[in-house]
Order: sequence, then C-alpha cells, then structure tokens
Amino acid sequence: MDTAEFRRRGKEMVDYIADYLESIEQRQVYPDVQPGYLRSLIPEEAPEQPDSYEDVVRDIERVIMPGVTHWHSPYFYAYYSTGNSYPSLLADMLSAAIGCVGFSWAASPACTELETVMLDWLGKMLNLPEDFLAGTAGQGGGVIQGTASEATIVALLAARSRTVRQIQAQSPEHTEMDIISKLVAYSSDQAHSSVEKAGLIAGVRMRKVATDEKFAVRGETFSVMLEEDKRKGLIPFYFCATLGTTPSCAFDCLTELGPICNAEKIWMHIDAAYAGSAFICPEFRPLLNGVEFADSFNFNPHKWLLVHFDCSAMWVRRRSDIIRAFKTDALYLNHDHQDSGLITDYRHWQIPMGSRFRSLKLWFVFRLYGLKGLQAHIRKHVLLAKEFERRVREDQRFEISADVVLGLVCFRLKGSNELNETLLKRINSARKIHLVPCQLAGRFVLRFAVCARSTESHHVQEAWAHIAEIASELMQDLQH
Amino acid sequence: MDTAEFRRRGKEMVDYIADYLESIEQRQVYPDVQPGYLRSLIPEEAPEQPDSYEDVVRDIERVIMPGVTHWHSPYFYAYYSTGNSYPSLLADMLSAAIGCVGFSWAASPACTELETVMLDWLGKMLNLPEDFLAGTAGQGGGVIQGTASEATIVALLAARSRTVRQIQAQSPEHTEMDIISKLVAYSSDQAHSSVEKAGLIAGVRMRKVATDEKFAVRGETFSVMLEEDKRKGLIPFYFCATLGTTPSCAFDCLTELGPICNAEKIWMHIDAAYAGSAFICPEFRPLLNGVEFADSFNFNPHKWLLVHFDCSAMWVRRRSDIIRAFKTDALYLNHDHQDSGLITDYRHWQIPMGSRFRSLKLWFVFRLYGLKGLQAHIRKHVLLAKEFERRVREDQRFEISADVVLGLVCFRLKGSNELNETLLKRINSARKIHLVPCQLAGRFVLRFAVCARSTESHHVQEAWAHIAEIASELMQDLQH
Repeated sequence: MDTAEFRRRGKEMVDYIADYLESIEQRQVYPDVQPGYLRSLIPEEAPEQPDSYEDVVRDIERVIMPGVTHWHSPYFYAYYSTGNSYPSLLADMLSAAIGCVGFSWAASPACTELETVMLDWLGKMLNLPEDFLAGTAGQGGGVIQGTASEATIVALLAARSRTVRQIQAQSPEHTEMDIISKLVAYSSDQAHSSVEKAGLIAGVRMRKVATDEKFAVRGETFSVMLEEDKRKGLIPFYFCATLGTTPSCAFDCLTELGPICNAEKIWMHIDAAYAGSAFICPEFRPLLNGVEFADSFNFNPHKWLLVHFDCSAMWVRRRSDIIRAFKTDALYLNHDHQDSGLITDYRHWQIPMGSRFRSLKLWFVFRLYGLKGLQAHIRKHVLLAKEFERRVREDQRFEISADVVLGLVCFRLKGSNELNETLLKRINSARKIHLVPCQLAGRFVLRFAVCARSTESHHVQEAWAHIAEIASELMQDLQH
Repeated sequence: MDTAEFRRRGKEMVDYIADYLESIEQRQVYPDVQPGYLRSLIPEEAPEQPDSYEDVVRDIERVIMPGVTHWHSPYFYAYYSTGNSYPSLLADMLSAAIGCVGFSWAASPACTELETVMLDWLGKMLNLPEDFLAGTAGQGGGVIQGTASEATIVALLAARSRTVRQIQAQSPEHTEMDIISKLVAYSSDQAHSSVEKAGLIAGVRMRKVATDEKFAVRGETFSVMLEEDKRKGLIPFYFCATLGTTPSCAFDCLTELGPICNAEKIWMHIDAAYAGSAFICPEFRPLLNGVEFADSFNFNPHKWLLVHFDCSAMWVRRRSDIIRAFKTDALYLNHDHQDSGLITDYRHWQIPMGSRFRSLKLWFVFRLYGLKGLQAHIRKHVLLAKEFERRVREDQRFEISADVVLGLVCFRLKGSNELNETLLKRINSARKIHLVPCQLAGRFVLRFAVCARSTESHHVQEAWAHIAEIASELMQDLQH
C-alpha cells in the first residue's frame, strides 16, 4: 500500500469509524457468538500473496463485528466505563504515525516532555499537592502507565526497594532476601484483583483488610492488623488504598489511614482507577482528601476522562524512590543529557522499557474539551446514575446495595442470591443491555455503571423499564 | 467535536500523516531541542474552555515536531527498527474506535479469538513446533504482550511458580519464600537490560553467563556455572536465551543450551525481540533451531514485521504454566464460558489486566503484505546491511566488530575507544543520520541498524559517504 492508497483508505476508515460510533446503538451490545466462532471464518494460514483491501474491509463486518462486545454502546452498563472521544482518536492516529518508542529522553524528547507536562496539567486539574508535580520545587512527578495494574506493581516495587534500603541502612547484616521474606503488603478486601496479582508478581505476602458497612477500610481495623503482624515479626511496608472500588465504588478512609502509614513508614499508594477522573470537579474533590499522606497516586484517564485505552496516570512524591527500584543501564541507551538532572528517562519508571506517545491523547482531549467540558461529562454520568437510583428506589421490589456516589448503582431484588442470579442471567440473555454482577457482604448484586459517552437519560429510562419488565416476568414465572 | 467534525478532522489527519511519512527524509532525523524545551512553549495549565482545533493542529508543528526523533526516517540507524506501515496504522484506527478492553473472552470475544488465531498464523510462518500453537492437540498457545520486557517477566514468573510447585510436591516442608530465596536465573552477558530488570521485579537472583568470541552463550560455560551454583545450594530455574542480542545481533547456541535446560528442569525462554521476524524467511529459520527445547518464545512484530508499537508475540508450550502463575479472580470478571476449557481469558497471561485489540494490526499486515511481502521487507534490510558492511570492509581505516547476520552492522575505526567516541559524537552532532554505540569485548563500537521501511540503497550509500567523510575530517584534525 503506497501513500496515495493510504490517503484513500485512511479516509474510508475515518468514515467507517464515524458510521460505527454514530449508529452504535443499533448494534446488539453483547455478541451471540460461541467459543471458537472466529477460527472457522478465516483461513488456517496467512496468505502468501496479498489479499485485496476490499476483502479485508468486508471481513470487518463478517468476522470481527459479530464477536465484538460494544463497550461504547449506550446500552453497555458493565464493568466501568472505558474512555473514547474523537479528539482522543485523532491524537492516537498521530501518535501511531510518529511511531517513536519512548524509553529515554533522547528516543524522542517531545514524547517525554509532553508526558511530564500533561501530568502536571492533570495534577493541577485534580488539585494534587504540589509535591507530586514535576514543574515545582518538589521531588515528585507523573508518568503514564498502561494500566492501574502496572501502577500498583510499580508502587509496590518502589516500596519494597525503599524498605530494604531503610532496613539495611540500620542493620547491614540483613540480606535483601531475608527482608523481602518478612514483608507484608495490605489492601482492602474490596480491592481489585490486580492488587493481589501485584503481590504474586513481586513475591511478597499480601493481606486483605476487612471493610466496614460502607465497604471502606477504616484506620482502626488496619491498626489492629498491623500490630498483629508486627508481633509475628513481619514488616508492614505497603498499603494500597482504593478510592472507588470495583464492586461498589467505595472509598477507603484516607484521612484515617494516611497518618498511620506515615507513622509506620508504610508506602501508601492510592488506586483511584475509575473514580479519579471525578476529582476534577470541586464537588467530588473532597473524596481525595488524605492524598497529602500518600507516596503515590494513580487513576485511569482511559476510564472516565474521554481518553481511550491505554492511559493510566500515576504520580509519585519522590521520583528517586521509583527510579531506584528498577534502574538498569546499557551503553546503547545512553545519551548526552542523561545525568544532567534536567531530563526524565521514563524507562526507569515503568515495567516495559518503552511506551507509545500516549500524552498526545491527553493533550488533544484537554484542549478540545477544556476543563469545563470534561467536568460536564463527569457530572452528566453522575446525574444519570442518580436518575437510575431514583427509579430503583421507587420500585418496592428492589433495594440499593451501596451508596451511589459517582456513576455506579449497585442494586438487587429483595430476595435470595439465586433470584438475583436468575434476574441477571435473563437480562444479559435478552441482549438489550449488558451488566455484570458483584458480591457485597455475601450478597449477589447487580451493577449498573453508566459507561458510554453517548448515554442519555432516555437510554437509562429504557434500561430501567427493561429491567423492571424482566423482573416482573421472573416473579410471574416463579409464582407458577 | 461531533461526528461530522470528526469526519472532516480525521481526513485532514490522514493527509497530515501521509504528508509526514512521505516527506519524512526532509526532516532532521534527530532534534536540536534542549531539555525542558517544551514546557515554555505551552500554557502552564489546561484551558477552562476548549481551544480551537486549528490551534491544536498548528501546535503539532510548533510544539511537537521540533522535539521528535524521527524513527521512520531513512536516516535513522539507531537502536533497532520499530515497525510502521499503512495497513498497521489503518488497523489501529479501527482498534481504537472499537475501544474494547481485552481481559476476558466475554469482554470482547473477537478480540481474544483473533489474537489466538493470529498467533497461530504467525507461529506457522515461523515454522514453530506444533506444541506452541493453540489450534492443535498440544497444550500451548500464543499471546500478544506489549513488549519483550513483559514477555521475559511473564516467563520468569511462570518458571518461578512451576519450580516452587515441583519442589513442594516432593518436599512439602519447604515454604515458597524459602524456595524463592534459593532460586537463580541466567542470561547472556549480552542480554538486554530488561532481563536484569525482570529479575529485580520478581525478586530473584540473576546471573550473567559469559559469552564466546561471537558474543554467544555456549553450553559448556553454562554447565560449569550451573554446577558451581548447585554446589552452593542454589536452585537454577530459568534461562533467558537471546537470539539477536541488542549490542551485536549475536545468537546464543540453543542446540547446546536447550538439552541442558531440559535435563535440569530449567525453563528456557527465548528472547528474539528483533531477530525473530527474520525467521519467516526459510534461509534465516535455522537460526531458530533448538526452539524445540524451549518452554517459551518471544519476538516483536513491532520491531521488524511492519506492525507498529506495541505488539510483542509470545508463545508458551504449556498454557497451564503461565495461567497458574497469575490467576486471580473476581465475580465481576466471571462469564458463562470461563470454565468451559474452550476459551482464553488473556488477563491470566499478562501483567496488565487488559489490553488493546492489537491482533487487528497483525491481521491487516499479514493480509495486505502476504507472507511474500513480509519476506521481501526482511530480505531488503539484510541486503542493505550487507551493502553497508562491504563499504566498511573496503575502507582500510575501519573494521567490522561482529558477524553481520541480519540488519545490523557493528563497526569501528581501527584505533582507540576515544577515537570512536569522538567519531560517533561528530556523526550525531552533524544531525544528518542517527546512530547509537555499543560495547563489545571492552571496545566502543558503532552500530548501524537498518531501520526504516523507506530506507533504500542510495540512503545507505549516502550514510556511508557521510561517515567516511567525518572520519577523514577527524583524522585530519588529529594530525594537526
């Protein structure tokens, strides 16, 4: 394919994408395909000679689309939202074309520097403590990770190496392996599965802290656990607090937990993967109070800030903590400015060596929506969730299972878990909307997460009417 | 930005990209900017109200391009190639628009299934042992990781957990921590810095095996090291072999190392990040001989197979080894088919939970180039490297520092390291071409890697003439 053909095919692809997103609600939100459906639709091997472009394009509708779960459909209410917007798509086209690999400042200075400055912009939008920003007198700064999972691991590894260094400074006779074998990390029992996985990867003990009736970790529960572990000779070193848990969007009590972590020299990392975007609105910013105690903070603009996957924003209070956990070098990676103190080599901040030019997505989205436009997007989703909550509360058969703080409503039929499992199965089998469940205090609960950028009030009303109708049918069937 | 505006702006962006790539050689390959250049060019904060699209586009040339290292310029000969092609760009536009997050089969069946089948296609192109493919009676399969770094870590973690299980099955009294503290992993002293980093992340001991005069690890050296470590009570468990090292494109001797690893129950992972693409050509496939002894194999189509970053292909011999290292679950991630044995939930295969729909890039590139087209691309780059090698050999002032096997030429002026450092500094300061150095047996060596898709013979000739001229000037200056 030469440049002339790319001009033509690229413009056709822009139209295909525009058509897809414009008419997405006409597609069935969850696919009907069975496991293995795709293999039988295409050849067993790559072609020797090129296929025609027309054939490839025809196969998008024949092979791919029948198996797509349409995350940007206004009938998609599963998991949490994932970002998508036209400015983000445009920025990513540019990023792919530039096609640099951002592992050092020299590998493409613009890629590194825009990332640093965009994380400062975003940090200011969130009113983060100045310590976390790069363009200040502080020692902190931001980085774009691929996912919150990676941020959790990077913070855990930085904490592990800091703790080893601190202990060895006082007691040089302890080997690194000895110390690591005594370390213990903590998170909420509501924390995302990736936190447990981070512990598996780093090879450290991980304990879950019980949550209160609002599914939040409280200071006292944590203190008791710490004392218990210290008595056993363990070394607490890392706490991953969650703001906006995946099951119910609960918030760990940072203002209680932060001072404990600071006093005990425990690294406090905050995972606000979904909820973090909301903190750009002054009315939701209090949910982040306590961040001043944290060593690192992370959320995913690719979830709720109109930036598409992947783009996970992470800030650390001390750059040196994170760099010292990972630093490896090689002559072929060296460059003139590396020891100048003026530049950032992001390979020391992340698990992969290189990354895409992801900050372009932030730059385009911030500029083309403006802070006001982004706030409007968040507020709209929260209002839609409140609207859905009201409808649930008006129906005496249902109950709300957790406070509705942002864009998620946890609800269930008053009744057994089996009843609710059946309800969910029927809702998802009908294929009109798509939901996933969660478990809260032993109860099977349905999650209604406002996800798509294009979701409007009438979609939510329609979704509720549909759920209520399926519930009625279910009740009727059970009576017979 | 509404859909109508996206249609317009998207088409303009396609033209911008086409113009950029068409005229890329007119841009200076390496930028002149100083550290911190970007911050002063843009505001300190995100705008409250949206900027105009015209302003954003204008800023691409004003703010971004002056700081870009142009990896796809035919004057870029640094590091190794990174992939780029029009079919890949088109596929990625589609991937971004679909915007699904591929953590489970249900999250988007097409995303999971195309990945599995494309890795089978690619495995067949490489003539991998059937064990590694998913659509066979074997227990293996492929996955797209973001980077070779991640593949190295995933394999290391799978090896760590397999070894712990094997030892505990025989001696249940050993704790996991005890066993991990005795583990030792190995790689070539020429291995990429990411291998050392993998050891840091997993918290295991890592040793470097000395290489022979061709910079390859040989069986005997490895055996001696193993015996030594076992005598010390350590447990060898992982060997990361490199095919195509970063400094000089050297190849560890798999046919000697594989049988040792198998006999010692050491997981052999093969990192062929750059060189792997070449194995689709029958004449280069012998370089992969010995893969039949490996537990896992990885290379980056995003390096040399015309697919843009990120897309790193990894295969494992036993799916269960990799899944058991990581598996964590949560109700909200469950789906009907998860225990059917028929599907793959890729979150158990990778460090991040989710990933982009990256297999679309492979699908478009394989189909629109065809195997023959991809082979032609590899062969052209190898021929260009050989052409450069001939020019170096014809010039008595220079020497070749390592065998030229694929698209990399390692060369230097006969003389001191300082001389060659000065030569490189002058070459890069002239800004006409861009190279990075490496160190081979204590010598400072220049690396000339054929990188861009658009590199032609006349570019290589021009680059050589330029280098030779700078060398002449340097010699002259030294005589004065």
